[in-house]
Amino acid sequence: MAPPTPRLVVPIDVKKSPWEQKLPIHNRWHPHIPPVAEVTEGEVFRVEMLDCVGGRVGDNNSAEDIKFVDASISHCLSGPLRVLDTKGVPAKPGDLLVVEICNLGPLLGNEWGFTATLDRDNGGGFLTDHFPCATKAIWYFEGIYAYSPNIPGVRFPGLTHPGVVGTAPSMELLQTWNEREKKLVETDIRSVKLSEVVHQRPVAHLPNTRNCLLGKVKEGTPEWERIANEAARTIPGRENGGNCDIKNLSTGSKVYLPVFVEGANLSTGDMHFSQGDGEITFCGAIEMSGFLELKCEIIRGGMKEYLTPMGPTHLHVNPIFEIGPVEPRFSEWLVFEGISVDEEGRQHFLDATLAFKRAVLNAIDYLSKFGYSKEQVYILLSCCPCEGRISGIVDTPNALATLAIPISIFDQDIRPKSGKVPAGPQVLKRLPDVLKSTYDGDLPITQNPTKDI
Amino acid sequence: MAPPTPRLVVPIDVKKSPWEQKLPIHNRWHPHIPPVAEVTEGEVFRVEMLDCVGGRVGDNNSAEDIKFVDASISHCLSGPLRVLDTKGVPAKPGDLLVVEICNLGPLLGNEWGFTATLDRDNGGGFLTDHFPCATKAIWYFEGIYAYSPNIPGVRFPGLTHPGVVGTAPSMELLQTWNEREKKLVETDIRSVKLSEVVHQRPVAHLPNTRNCLLGKVKEGTPEWERIANEAARTIPGRENGGNCDIKNLSTGSKVYLPVFVEGANLSTGDMHFSQGDGEITFCGAIEMSGFLELKCEIIRGGMKEYLTPMGPTHLHVNPIFEIGPVEPRFSEWLVFEGISVDEEGRQHFLDATLAFKRAVLNAIDYLSKFGYSKEQVYILLSCCPCEGRISGIVDTPNALATLAIPISIFDQDIRPKSGKVPAGPQVLKRLPDVLKSTYDGDLPITQNPTKDI
Amino acid sequence: MAPPTPRLVVPIDVKKSPWEQKLPIHNRWHPHIPPVAEVTEGEVFRVEMLDCVGGRVGDNNSAEDIKFVDASISHCLSGPLRVLDTKGVPAKPGDLLVVEICNLGPLLGNEWGFTATLDRDNGGGFLTDHFPCATKAIWYFEGIYAYSPNIPGVRFPGLTHPGVVGTAPSMELLQTWNEREKKLVETDIRSVKLSEVVHQRPVAHLPNTRNCLLGKVKEGTPEWERIANEAARTIPGRENGGNCDIKNLSTGSKVYLPVFVEGANLSTGDMHFSQGDGEITFCGAIEMSGFLELKCEIIRGGMKEYLTPMGPTHLHVNPIFEIGPVEPRFSEWLVFEGISVDEEGRQHFLDATLAFKRAVLNAIDYLSKFGYSKEQVYILLSCCPCEGRISGIVDTPNALATLAIPISIFDQDIRPKSGKVPAGPQVLKRLPDVLKSTYDGDLPITQNPTKDI
Amino acid sequence: MAPPTPRLVVPIDVKKSPWEQKLPIHNRWHPHIPPVAEVTEGEVFRVEMLDCVGGRVGDNNSAEDIKFVDASISHCLSGPLRVLDTKGVPAKPGDLLVVEICNLGPLLGNEWGFTATLDRDNGGGFLTDHFPCATKAIWYFEGIYAYSPNIPGVRFPGLTHPGVVGTAPSMELLQTWNEREKKLVETDIRSVKLSEVVHQRPVAHLPNTRNCLLGKVKEGTPEWERIANEAARTIPGRENGGNCDIKNLSTGSKVYLPVFVEGANLSTGDMHFSQGDGEITFCGAIEMSGFLELKCEIIRGGMKEYLTPMGPTHLHVNPIFEIGPVEPRFSEWLVFEGISVDEEGRQHFLDATLAFKRAVLNAIDYLSKFGYSKEQVYILLSCCPCEGRISGIVDTPNALATLAIPISIFDQDIRPKSGKVPAGPQVLKRLPDVLKSTYDGDLPITQNPTKDI
Repeated sequence: MAPPTPRLVVPIDVKKSPWEQKLPIHNRWHPHIPPVAEVTEGEVFRVEMLDCVGGRVGDNNSAEDIKFVDASISHCLSGPLRVLDTKGVPAKPGDLLVVEICNLGPLLGNEWGFTATLDRDNGGGFLTDHFPCATKAIWYFEGIYAYSPNIPGVRFPGLTHPGVVGTAPSMELLQTWNEREKKLVETDIRSVKLSEVVHQRPVAHLPNTRNCLLGKVKEGTPEWERIANEAARTIPGRENGGNCDIKNLSTGSKVYLPVFVEGANLSTGDMHFSQGDGEITFCGAIEMSGFLELKCEIIRGGMKEYLTPMGPTHLHVNPIFEIGPVEPRFSEWLVFEGISVDEEGRQHFLDATLAFKRAVLNAIDYLSKFGYSKEQVYILLSCCPCEGRISGIVDTPNALATLAIPISIFDQDIRPKSGKVPAGPQVLKRLPDVLKSTYDGDLPITQNPTKDI
Repeated sequence: MAPPTPRLVVPIDVKKSPWEQKLPIHNRWHPHIPPVAEVTEGEVFRVEMLDCVGGRVGDNNSAEDIKFVDASISHCLSGPLRVLDTKGVPAKPGDLLVVEICNLGPLLGNEWGFTATLDRDNGGGFLTDHFPCATKAIWYFEGIYAYSPNIPGVRFPGLTHPGVVGTAPSMELLQTWNEREKKLVETDIRSVKLSEVVHQRPVAHLPNTRNCLLGKVKEGTPEWERIANEAARTIPGRENGGNCDIKNLSTGSKVYLPVFVEGANLSTGDMHFSQGDGEITFCGAIEMSGFLELKCEIIRGGMKEYLTPMGPTHLHVNPIFEIGPVEPRFSEWLVFEGISVDEEGRQHFLDATLAFKRAVLNAIDYLSKFGYSKEQVYILLSCCPCEGRISGIVDTPNALATLAIPISIFDQDIRPKSGKVPAGPQVLKRLPDVLKSTYDGDLPITQNPTKDI
Repeated sequence: MAPPTPRLVVPIDVKKSPWEQKLPIHNRWHPHIPPVAEVTEGEVFRVEMLDCVGGRVGDNNSAEDIKFVDASISHCLSGPLRVLDTKGVPAKPGDLLVVEICNLGPLLGNEWGFTATLDRDNGGGFLTDHFPCATKAIWYFEGIYAYSPNIPGVRFPGLTHPGVVGTAPSMELLQTWNEREKKLVETDIRSVKLSEVVHQRPVAHLPNTRNCLLGKVKEGTPEWERIANEAARTIPGRENGGNCDIKNLSTGSKVYLPVFVEGANLSTGDMHFSQGDGEITFCGAIEMSGFLELKCEIIRGGMKEYLTPMGPTHLHVNPIFEIGPVEPRFSEWLVFEGISVDEEGRQHFLDATLAFKRAVLNAIDYLSKFGYSKEQVYILLSCCPCEGRISGIVDTPNALATLAIPISIFDQDIRPKSGKVPAGPQVLKRLPDVLKSTYDGDLPITQNPTKDI
Repeated sequence: MAPPTPRLVVPIDVKKSPWEQKLPIHNRWHPHIPPVAEVTEGEVFRVEMLDCVGGRVGDNNSAEDIKFVDASISHCLSGPLRVLDTKGVPAKPGDLLVVEICNLGPLLGNEWGFTATLDRDNGGGFLTDHFPCATKAIWYFEGIYAYSPNIPGVRFPGLTHPGVVGTAPSMELLQTWNEREKKLVETDIRSVKLSEVVHQRPVAHLPNTRNCLLGKVKEGTPEWERIANEAARTIPGRENGGNCDIKNLSTGSKVYLPVFVEGANLSTGDMHFSQGDGEITFCGAIEMSGFLELKCEIIRGGMKEYLTPMGPTHLHVNPIFEIGPVEPRFSEWLVFEGISVDEEGRQHFLDATLAFKRAVLNAIDYLSKFGYSKEQVYILLSCCPCEGRISGIVDTPNALATLAIPISIFDQDIRPKSGKVPAGPQVLKRLPDVLKSTYDGDLPITQNPTKDI
């Protein structure tokens, strides 16, 4: 007879901007961003969330909004939530916070999302040296299914999940982040490992005050200034979880997060209707606003008991995840492979990032034969339920990565067959394409040296 | 009424050495290694295979055989097979060869395998800087299940597959391989990308004549000398497929291989009873002798129709794979995460290899709390059906890789729970461990700077 | 840019009675019940529904409401909906109506349900001769999961589905139903096949005007009287679909329904959070109010094209279903078997109903050893995702039915093991039980002749 | 270092008749049939088996062999095996025998099977009143896949399993069987429940000496005469397991069998490459010779601990099964429904056998629209991995059964679609059909009263 409806602890109004929400949102990690609400171990509660860019990209016919989107707004997080046990004692540093995802989905009345590639000079993406333009696809939801007017012939069930689930860092952990990332930024780019392979820039996002949202901390106050200058950007996943982008973290899953500050200060955001492993286009899942229904448990002393730090301090740990039994399952997959030889034909050493890049490039070239544009496939592989695997990491000199794509998401059979490639839908009908902007920068595009292909 | 039994085209006698087999085996890639048999499109045929090291590692109580194993023997391949269409016309360069895996398994009377880590000075493995010793676990099969006297408390169904499936390269392709790998070897090791992260050496295996097996080419002849000096080692996967180590390539799967020489010259070997993504310990699957039942189809002109080269020549392509519906399926997974921050706490840029290394290290530390030795877990993660995923590759500066482990392979519940870690079997019973050798070299071991853990 | 939110065509207020809803509900099948709304082919629309008994069973601590529930109220259906094609032309008799289930779930704020056994003198159930009392379990939902304070130690993800999806019958079809069911009722009960095995009574529910709800047809009018006297009860599934209770008919599924009247007149109701095959306790799923998001397609002339009547008229057809890929999947099952030998030891001939009864009785006896009461297990098997299979139907004289139960829904290992049955939770803690009423009737209880067990 | 190869305890030579095998086979259940071998708890051993009819049906172009096959030969069982614990103490009455299926498959060199319908006057099948002729389809295996020259356009992976796994009955249990089945046979057929629905005859198979095989008991001796006159036929599954025909009982599964005699006397046979739920054509799986690799465990006193008798004696129990995680999984299913209204349009009461018959008839009619003959579909549904479910058993008066067919086994899309049924392969190419014999009897064929369909 207890009221079973999840308590709504963070409401969101998608018609309002990130600055106007009833409970203030935040888009930085800092221990001094105060909790906006309390939740108790065992209760199921509901958190609503803006999309990653706070509504700045619209359901319209242009990619200009994504071309000029200001990445400093990302991610619009709901929280922090202070987590108490059933006796009212808050979670404490050294505990492990178990967050079970009981339910999740889009917000009623807002059943759409988008997938975008960013302009090369505005954040880029995994293949930005091949595809420097900003592009966008709109997705509509039919219950569990998504389809896009910009990519006809494809429909798939969402494996919906939050991109960001994290606890607040302690000051010590925050300083560790800021120092190590600053050191990377200050390095000569040519000496950075993988800089030849991955052309995405900047190499890291250091704290900056632009578009900084700090929840209940009042803008304009000295405290706001201090925190804004210290607070970590939310782009990368780190020791506190954060932007993990694990595509299978859907209903029934659990996240085991280390607790660094009293109350844990749990934040969530960046809902994805669906995402492919790697989230290759960067703004690359089906980005949407949405809700989570969560249940927390505190394992007292669980950090020491279950996590083993590896690094200079006891804080160098990573969260653990448990994937539940409720997923769309696909029984047949087409798999593309890449090895660590770059587009120029140069041999690299056990480089899984490069091998994965080659697997993705192979998949794009292949699927574009079936009537899709390459931009359509790039976006599709970023948001459909494809799996990116490290298949071999020891067979020197080649790392071998694979990209597995479920065959049933297409309305045509995409397997190789005797005879010519069947004419795809686009070839026959001049289908619509993803929305595109121009690339106005002057960085070189990676060319396939096989000229006449 | 047609005889349905697969024709045995390559018989193997595991009691004999690689040099004594009825049809000679080979362990190099070269276009001039002559076919040992012909197979016709549409027929189901059987190929038997030695294990990867040709039987040099035994079902015994010592790791000395793996410590001193000569890697130049790997892999002992069966074939090449010349593939004809139903009119007797061979596959031609530019065709696509479809190889369906109808069935596979261990050889009757030889139902065992081993998983090993190589000594750091003899090939190493993914974590050789942490685990420099040669170690070995023996696995016995109970039908589809494997268990090891060296790792009690674990039993799992095999997702059996061939590590190596490939076609012969053309001379042009072979030269491309040799040149690019030579260039890598000649580079100053300190400037090689990832050399800080991956300590496995040598960085590549150039042609050498030691233990070279060239099938029907007679040793001691000038032709043998020439081919042996040119032929590529089979360690890495390349454009011809080869050592792809894709763990899901089991019954019902198809491989779409490019054809570079007349007849395709298909070779297979390196059977794995089971393997984890990455095959992290190098000799890392459950290595065994075994058989394949295969069926071929030739898609004429399929290379141009379905594959898109990326690189300096038309030969820079990769095979495609189709995974079938017949697999053991696991419904619950525990997932470990790693980001591209190294053991010293240094930030790297979108490095998936490092992120995966950290995920594996996290998993080893975690599971060792349940009563297993770290060496047991390292071997286990190399051969059990765990999945290595590239979860995020765009959230600068952190690549994020995950390692998902099926929970049901353990006879205890390995999930984090309130209270202390349950005492695992080893803690209680001083269980046996994997077989270990000493490391006699002087390379430094990577230490976890968190001293008191 | 089209509004993607499903249009709410039938709203429900669970705080109001079936008689007070904004759009009137109905609980009979008749061609003259007028549509309450129109929907168009291709649009996604939302239908809300009361639970099967219109809210007459409460979230309380007593089974008295179920003991005296008036079954004549069931099922409270939403609709009928008149289905038009995109040109506004309605579906016509002879068409096939494709109803895709895009999404579904409980109503916000009403996340609970119940499972009940009916009193033997008030409808009974499959095992009513063994369990004549009315009993009830309340279920609460934590997102996709259900748990019951009345059956501790069990938690499972729901495979939520509508029990009832159907089109309106034509007058001809309605008469066929009424005649054949009347004939059955008028038969001497002792000569009815299976009357020895199945003690559920009455054997059929003929039209009656008690609690009759006819949507927009005004009560008290002559038309209401006429229709109420003719309209078919909704208890059994029939040619129009209706109460099919197919537990896998969840998100992503499609129903292919024959159309008998212009507009199809689609009705839905009887939402089940979860149900076991057979729905053995009669009010046997987790009964709840809820919503469906549906999309319709009309296959013109599809009845003739795709359905084959079998029986005296062209109307003797059955719908077809397509089950989608989105389900919780369980990898391990414990399976109980029954053969067509009754509780007295008498041999029956290929009787699958009896064989299934025996399988269920075996499962109840077995699971009750683990600390559950038999009433708890009876209710659990009625609503958890167990599978009832006809495994053998030709091996005279024994039909063989099986009941497969997913092992992971229990918090203890229910497999047989060496040694004593582990003491279940109830044994240790005197757990709560399902809510029970007394059986005040005088019908005999089927006794297990094995006295001393 | 223990020899891991399963010990071959029962060898079979398929070129020899059932009478000529090295270890004598048996085809009756009786406690006095002596064991042919001993096996020890924990060891993996191999048992080979003839097919169900002992090789009397051939890989040829005629159905005459099945038309005149003598059913008294069925099933040719291997065993009995006496099961000992590790100390050499045999299993004892009251124990539970756990039989794990580690591996299984066809015999090398004999990779084919057949599916047949029996002539109505020679045993019939589930739909024998519709299909009275003997028919046959030959299946060839390509590893895990089966295809038939008699049913083109269909190929599926086998879920291979033994039809028969059982322990020997005690004399007391045997008498119980003989008495109850004799009573059924002696009943006036018209009063037998379900006799109107199921026309398969005889209603039971009483002991007879014709073609009786009793293993080591010498034919012609008085003991042989006595046992042959008492021994139960193996057609139906009973308390000892036996012919359970559970299609999912494949690798990784366990059977928990009651032990009635010292040593358990385990027998197996009737290997099925694949079977549909119900095995509807009687000789209805893909029947083949084959092998099992098994491992036994004895749960001492487990019958009392885990099984609950229901019936006049303590022996009225049924085995339990555990289905393992290794199966081909299909993600999309087309589902046909039947209710308990017979072909004449008469209403029956909660009759699941009839409802299932109607579901199967609906599926046959439907699939025959796609270019298959009805006889092809009848045979296909008997042996492909389709699921027969009891979906509703309480909605008086209609039982509701469903038959779910995996869509991917067909090489055409069999879903209903707008427009005409696509012309199936047979329509286009006049495909071969199953092999057919004439029906020479005079029993009436059940006609579909819908004349003009």
